[in-house]
Amino acid sequence: MAQPRASKAKVVDVHTHMYPPEYIRILESRLTIPLVRSFPGATDPRLILLDAEVPALNVALSSGPAATPSVLPGRPLTRHFASLSQKLHFMDTHGIDISIVSLANPWLDFLPPATAGPTATSINTSFSSMCAAHPGRLYFFAALPLTAPQEAILSSIAHAAALPYCRGVILGTSGLGSGLDDPLLLPILRALATASLPIFLHPHYGLPNAVFGPLAAAGAYGHVLPLAIGFPVETTIAVTRMYLAGVFDAVPSLRMLLAHSGGCLPFLAGRIESCIVHDGHLAVLGKTASPPRRTVWEVLREQVYLDAVIYSNVGLKAAVQAAGEGGAGRVMFGTDHPFFPPVGGGEGEDGVWESVELNSLAVEGAFGAGTPGAEGVMGGNAVEVFRLFGE
Amino acid sequence: MAQPRASKAKVVDVHTHMYPPEYIRILESRLTIPLVRSFPGATDPRLILLDAEVPALNVALSSGPAATPSVLPGRPLTRHFASLSQKLHFMDTHGIDISIVSLANPWLDFLPPATAGPTATSINTSFSSMCAAHPGRLYFFAALPLTAPQEAILSSIAHAAALPYCRGVILGTSGLGSGLDDPLLLPILRALATASLPIFLHPHYGLPNAVFGPLAAAGAYGHVLPLAIGFPVETTIAVTRMYLAGVFDAVPSLRMLLAHSGGCLPFLAGRIESCIVHDGHLAVLGKTASPPRRTVWEVLREQVYLDAVIYSNVGLKAAVQAAGEGGAGRVMFGTDHPFFPPVGGGEGEDGVWESVELNSLAVEGAFGAGTPGAEGVMGGNAVEVFRLFGE
Repeated sequence: MAQPRASKAKVVDVHTHMYPPEYIRILESRLTIPLVRSFPGATDPRLILLDAEVPALNVALSSGPAATPSVLPGRPLTRHFASLSQKLHFMDTHGIDISIVSLANPWLDFLPPATAGPTATSINTSFSSMCAAHPGRLYFFAALPLTAPQEAILSSIAHAAALPYCRGVILGTSGLGSGLDDPLLLPILRALATASLPIFLHPHYGLPNAVFGPLAAAGAYGHVLPLAIGFPVETTIAVTRMYLAGVFDAVPSLRMLLAHSGGCLPFLAGRIESCIVHDGHLAVLGKTASPPRRTVWEVLREQVYLDAVIYSNVGLKAAVQAAGEGGAGRVMFGTDHPFFPPVGGGEGEDGVWESVELNSLAVEGAFGAGTPGAEGVMGGNAVEVFRLFGE
Repeated sequence: MAQPRASKAKVVDVHTHMYPPEYIRILESRLTIPLVRSFPGATDPRLILLDAEVPALNVALSSGPAATPSVLPGRPLTRHFASLSQKLHFMDTHGIDISIVSLANPWLDFLPPATAGPTATSINTSFSSMCAAHPGRLYFFAALPLTAPQEAILSSIAHAAALPYCRGVILGTSGLGSGLDDPLLLPILRALATASLPIFLHPHYGLPNAVFGPLAAAGAYGHVLPLAIGFPVETTIAVTRMYLAGVFDAVPSLRMLLAHSGGCLPFLAGRIESCIVHDGHLAVLGKTASPPRRTVWEVLREQVYLDAVIYSNVGLKAAVQAAGEGGAGRVMFGTDHPFFPPVGGGEGEDGVWESVELNSLAVEGAFGAGTPGAEGVMGGNAVEVFRLFGE
């Protein structure tokens, strides 16, 4: 039985990131990605996160400390990344009532084991304080210190679960270093399920640069291929590996919210299921499993939620249909703020963002503006799934 | 103005492969993939095609010439791969009136430059003779000798275009070795467009094994990840690279049929378009282009066709919607025969294949059985697009 909604027609952003100031300071101190670096003549420091951005970083660094490189690597670290007032301004501009903010990639994945635990405590406490300063408008997904010893990760989960505005954790696809199908990760996933903390699964590592070819490596296509294809494919592979390893069966109360409408999962689920049914070894395994193997579709409909960050109503409809009967209740609006700002930067970033409009128009296009389906995706679903009733 | 249909409610298979006997002999002579190898105790020789199958091949070879390996690499090379009568039996069993057969991957991509041209002539002549032996039931997509000098490739296109049952060419994603966005490939693409030979684009190379993680490498997931995710992602990357390089603008009469409903392209098109609009360099380029940059959607709707090999009506609907107004006219049924046979092999392979049923049920589910939309996807579209009116 669904809980009654706290309010009708709330707009909720489930996919929205921040780097608290102490996280920026960590990035500024680093010599390898992820890092923050300033270049002369550039208004903002540059935030360099991805393997695909390393060639441009190397070119920029080799142009000497005083020269302005012709192509700046990464993206500008604008005031949108660390400023809470800017987040609230963005929410007001776009009519967003509630945001569930999360640390942006690559989270704490790169920290040494000894500092990861204390950093997680500090970052999650920061997020908690931000939320407490604006009660009812902000919730957060906590970050986990996955490079730390298991005990420290479990402590961090307990710490996060006790923070009043925490509504889940944000996780990348690397797990403890070997992916989310790693049996050693199971105790962590069980602890999250027991604490009723869903995982917001988000990509970062993409695909090896080589798959995008020499012209991409030479910079001809900007960031398009790693972001537009590498990211969603990474998510798709990660979840499919979890499925094949039986993780969803092993932790049936685990709930996951998949970034970017599941990557390509709604579109490829049929092919994945067919490839399993037609694989000699796996098909036999599936038929002898007890209880019987659930299909990919069943797991999608029982343990998975999808955000609506897909920029088209074609994709959004597929995401909703993949989630089955009542699938509209499993899909939730998001913005990916502060990424994908209007091109040109500056004052334009204080106005309406086209990237946000593309996603809200997709919801209108798929459901019709103001329909119950649209209102659910725009916020009602998130209010219920993440219990955003105020404290 | 659409041409009148030759006949109502024909069923056409646009995605169906064969290896003629001379191609099998090439594979039998090889020491590295692709190859065909027999193992004692196994009924059929094994066909080993993919990088992902090399670990199992090495294990099998190391078990000695007389021993039966515990896990056989690749797939059985059944009579379905080279036998024309088996192809016709398969068509009759599944109510398929017409097949456009094509050489299966990896085509001639691995041949030395000197033998590629003559092999293409021989293979394409073989396909032409098979079609001539069953007029009106069989057409074919020709193979090209892409490792040969440009002149030989152009000769091969002229040869294929003159064969009466040839309706296009099948191509992988490697082009001349650097991908389909390689400027050196443009003369080949222009020659194909001038000869009115659409490209049937098909994956083979997938993604590097490492992206699937250690459990996949150890064989835990069978062939699922490279086939279910690697293949469609390869197609998606290849077409997006062509788009970004301006290939569709440079050769506006080029037409492409994308295998597996375009990989993930219908689902990711919105994200790709958004990433372009939000990429500083590319967005500026797009705004100053003359004529203005067409969106990814426009190119999909003007130069691209999709097969319906997607195994779900969720995916099929997205494919149809991605193709826009009248998009149902750009999507065409296929089987991927002789791949994905019923598990267990043997006599079962002479009956109805579940992999085929999944795809025809998806069409029924998306359109309703017997509706004009369903009849178009099941065959009417292919009859018109590929002029399958008999000779």
